[in-house]
Amino acid sequence: MTVQQLLCGAVKAKACAARLSAAQKNAALLAIADELEVDIPLILKANAADMSEADGAVSDVMLDRLRLTSDRIRAMAQGVREVAALPDPAGEVLQTISRPDGLNIKKVAVPLGVVAIIYESRPNVTSDAAALCLKSGNVCVLRTGRQAYRSALAIVDAMKKALLHCGLNGELINLVQDSTREGAKQLMTAEGYIDLLIPRGGAGLIAECVKNATVPVIQTGTGICHIYVDSAADQSMALKIIENAKCSRPSVCNAAEVCLVNADIAREFLPALYAALVSERRSGKVELRLDEPSYAVLGGRPYCVRAGESDFDTEFLDYILAVKVVENVERAAEHIAAHSTKHSDCIVTRDEATAEKFIAMVDSAAVYVNASTRFTDGGQFGLGCEMGISTQKLHARGPMGLRELCTYKYIVRGEGNIR
Amino acid sequence: MTVQQLLCGAVKAKACAARLSAAQKNAALLAIADELEVDIPLILKANAADMSEADGAVSDVMLDRLRLTSDRIRAMAQGVREVAALPDPAGEVLQTISRPDGLNIKKVAVPLGVVAIIYESRPNVTSDAAALCLKSGNVCVLRTGRQAYRSALAIVDAMKKALLHCGLNGELINLVQDSTREGAKQLMTAEGYIDLLIPRGGAGLIAECVKNATVPVIQTGTGICHIYVDSAADQSMALKIIENAKCSRPSVCNAAEVCLVNADIAREFLPALYAALVSERRSGKVELRLDEPSYAVLGGRPYCVRAGESDFDTEFLDYILAVKVVENVERAAEHIAAHSTKHSDCIVTRDEATAEKFIAMVDSAAVYVNASTRFTDGGQFGLGCEMGISTQKLHARGPMGLRELCTYKYIVRGEGNIR
Repeated sequence: MTVQQLLCGAVKAKACAARLSAAQKNAALLAIADELEVDIPLILKANAADMSEADGAVSDVMLDRLRLTSDRIRAMAQGVREVAALPDPAGEVLQTISRPDGLNIKKVAVPLGVVAIIYESRPNVTSDAAALCLKSGNVCVLRTGRQAYRSALAIVDAMKKALLHCGLNGELINLVQDSTREGAKQLMTAEGYIDLLIPRGGAGLIAECVKNATVPVIQTGTGICHIYVDSAADQSMALKIIENAKCSRPSVCNAAEVCLVNADIAREFLPALYAALVSERRSGKVELRLDEPSYAVLGGRPYCVRAGESDFDTEFLDYILAVKVVENVERAAEHIAAHSTKHSDCIVTRDEATAEKFIAMVDSAAVYVNASTRFTDGGQFGLGCEMGISTQKLHARGPMGLRELCTYKYIVRGEGNIR
Repeated sequence: MTVQQLLCGAVKAKACAARLSAAQKNAALLAIADELEVDIPLILKANAADMSEADGAVSDVMLDRLRLTSDRIRAMAQGVREVAALPDPAGEVLQTISRPDGLNIKKVAVPLGVVAIIYESRPNVTSDAAALCLKSGNVCVLRTGRQAYRSALAIVDAMKKALLHCGLNGELINLVQDSTREGAKQLMTAEGYIDLLIPRGGAGLIAECVKNATVPVIQTGTGICHIYVDSAADQSMALKIIENAKCSRPSVCNAAEVCLVNADIAREFLPALYAALVSERRSGKVELRLDEPSYAVLGGRPYCVRAGESDFDTEFLDYILAVKVVENVERAAEHIAAHSTKHSDCIVTRDEATAEKFIAMVDSAAVYVNASTRFTDGGQFGLGCEMGISTQKLHARGPMGLRELCTYKYIVRGEGNIR
C-alpha cells in the first residue's frame, strides 16, 4: 500500500473514530492489550529478526531500545489497559456559557482527526501511540524507523486483529510500509490529510520535520537536560540525583546531559561526582566531558576528557556527561537559556530564594528543585502513558497525554438569536 | 528605531512583564483607559489625517474600519477597563499532582513572552491587543497597516504615557515604525525574539505569514462563514439570521459570505431572501452571486448575478452574498468542508437530528444552530475583548482571550527524589 492510499483510508476512518463511544473505545483497548499478550511469540520472533539485523550496526544503548522481551510486551499491554482506564477526553464539555438573550454556547473537546507519529526504533511507541490516539478518537498513522519495522508490524497486526474482533474499522490504526526518508517526507507534507504530526526521536528527526513539514507539527523529545548544583546544595543529595538522572536510563530524553557546578563548591564536589559516576560504579561508568575549570580539578583521571564546544549542545543518550563550572545561579540560568532544549532542567539547593530565582529564569517545560529530571514523563505526571514530551510553548508543553490530542469546538444554539 | 532595535528592547522587557503583579497590571490598564480618553483630541486628529489619505483609495467598508469617533475611542477605553476586570491568567496553578513519594508537581500558567501582532487598518486592534498582552504578562510588538499608522501611533503614545505614569517600562508596548512588507517579514523571521506571531487580517496577510514565518504563528480571522437553510427551517428565522449575519457589519470575519439553501425549499425561500436582502432594504442592498439553480429562480432581477467559481472561496467583507442550492444536510456539510475557513458555520433547522448531523460533520471553530454567526467574538463568548479568532486546531480555536496568550510550565519540587 502506498503512503497516499494509506492516508486516504485514514481520512475516511476519521468519522468512525470520532463517533466511537467511550465504551467501544475501552473494549477495543482491552482487546488490543489481550491480543498483544496472545501474540507475544509472534512479536518476539519479529523483534529477534530486527535485533539480529541491527546487532553490530548500532550502539548498545540503541540495541536496548529496540529489544523486546515477554516482560516488556506485557508492560506494553498493561500500558494500553491503563489508557482504557483513563477518562475519555473527547466530547467533554469544557465550558458552558449561557447568555442573557438565551443563546447557549458549549466548548466541547473533539479529536484532532488524523495524527501521524514518526518515531525511531523503539517498538513500545507503536502500541503507546496507537492506544492514545484511539482513546482520544483520533486515527493514527505510524511510521517507525527501518530497524524496528518488523517489530512494529507484528504489534500493529495484533492491534488490527483486536479491532476487527470488536467489529471496528482496521484503518483506525495504520503503519506506513515505506521506512525511507521519502516516506517520512510524504507524511510531513500531507496537507489536508494529517491534522497533527508528532516526531518522536532525536534532534535530527525533529529538525527535519520542523524544516520540511507543511502540516501542523509538535516538536517533542530532544532533551538536553541540565542539573545545576548550587553552593547551597545538599551535595550528597545532588550526587544521588545526578547519578539517577544520568545513569538510570541514559537513552531517554529526560536523562541529564549536562551538570553545572557552582564555582564555590567545585573543588569539593567534582571529586565526589567522579567517585559516584566513575570510580565507584562497576558498570555503566560515565565519561566526563569537562570545561577548563573542572578539567583543572579532575583532568588526568580515567574517563575524564576536555569538553569540545559541541558537548554542551549534544543529546548524548549515553553514559556521557558534560560538566561546567558556573559562578552563580544567574550564570547557570543564562547557560541553560542558551543551550537547553527547554525540556527539563534542575537546581539542587537548600536556599529557597535561589530556587525561586531559578524557577523564574528557566523557561523549560519542567523546572525541578531537588529531584531527578527522569520524572518528566506522562505516567509520572499522572497522564497515563504519553505521546511524547513537547518542547514547544504552543498547544502542549511537557508530557502530552489524551487532552493534548484533542482540540475543541464551540457549539452555539439559539432560537433565531441575532447580534 | 529599527525593527531589530525594537525587538531587542521587547526581549529585555520580557522579565519585567512576567514579574508584574495583577494589581500592577490592572492599575496600568486603568491608567491606559483614562489616558486614551484624555487623548481623544490627539487620536482623532491623527485619525483624520489617516482618513483623508485613505479616502478614495479604499472601499467604504474599509473606510468604516479605519474611522475613529469619540464614541469609538471611549469604547476602546472601556474594552481596556474590561480586560483589567478579568482574572489574571498568569501564575494560575492549573493542576497540582502530589505523588506518593512526596514529589510535588504544579502546572502553572506562564506568559508566552513576546507576542507580535500584524494587523491591518483597524485602529481599535491597537489598544485591544496591547491590553490583552499586558494583562497576560506578555510584551507586545504591534505592526499596523500603513493606512492606520498615525492613528495607531497616537494610541500607542497614550498607552506608553500611562505606563510611564505608573512607573513601568514603556517597552512593554511597542509599535513597529516600518509599515512596509519588509518590516512585516522581519517580524515573521525573528526567531529567538518572538514567541508567538498573530496575523489579524485578510486571507492575503494570513497566507503570507504562514508561508514566510519561521516563528510560531496562530492563523486568525479569515472567515468564509456559511449559513445552511434546511428544508425543516423556520424560514422567517432564517431570513432574520442571514440579514443579521450578512448586513450588521459586513467588514468583520464573522459575517456570513455564503448561503446554502436546501433544494426542497429553494423556490419558496429564494424570493423571500431577495426581498430581505435587496428589495426591502433602503441602503446596504446585497449583491447576490447565484449558482445555476438559484439563478434559475432569481436571475434577471437587479443585484442578481451568476456566481463565478471563486465566489464560493472569497471573503467578500462587503454587501455581497454567494448563494448555492444543495440537496441535503450532507451535501451542505461537504460543501462547507471543501470551502469553509473553519471559522463559523450555521444551520437553520427545526429538526434536531439534522442539527446533530450538521454539528458532527462540520469541523469549524464555532458551529451554530439557529443563531447568527456574528456571535463568534471574544466579548460575546465571555473572554473580555479578544486577540483574534483562531481558525486552526492547535493551541487555540475560535476567539483567543487571555488564557490563549499563556503557555504553562511544570514546577517540580522534591527532597532528593529519584526514579
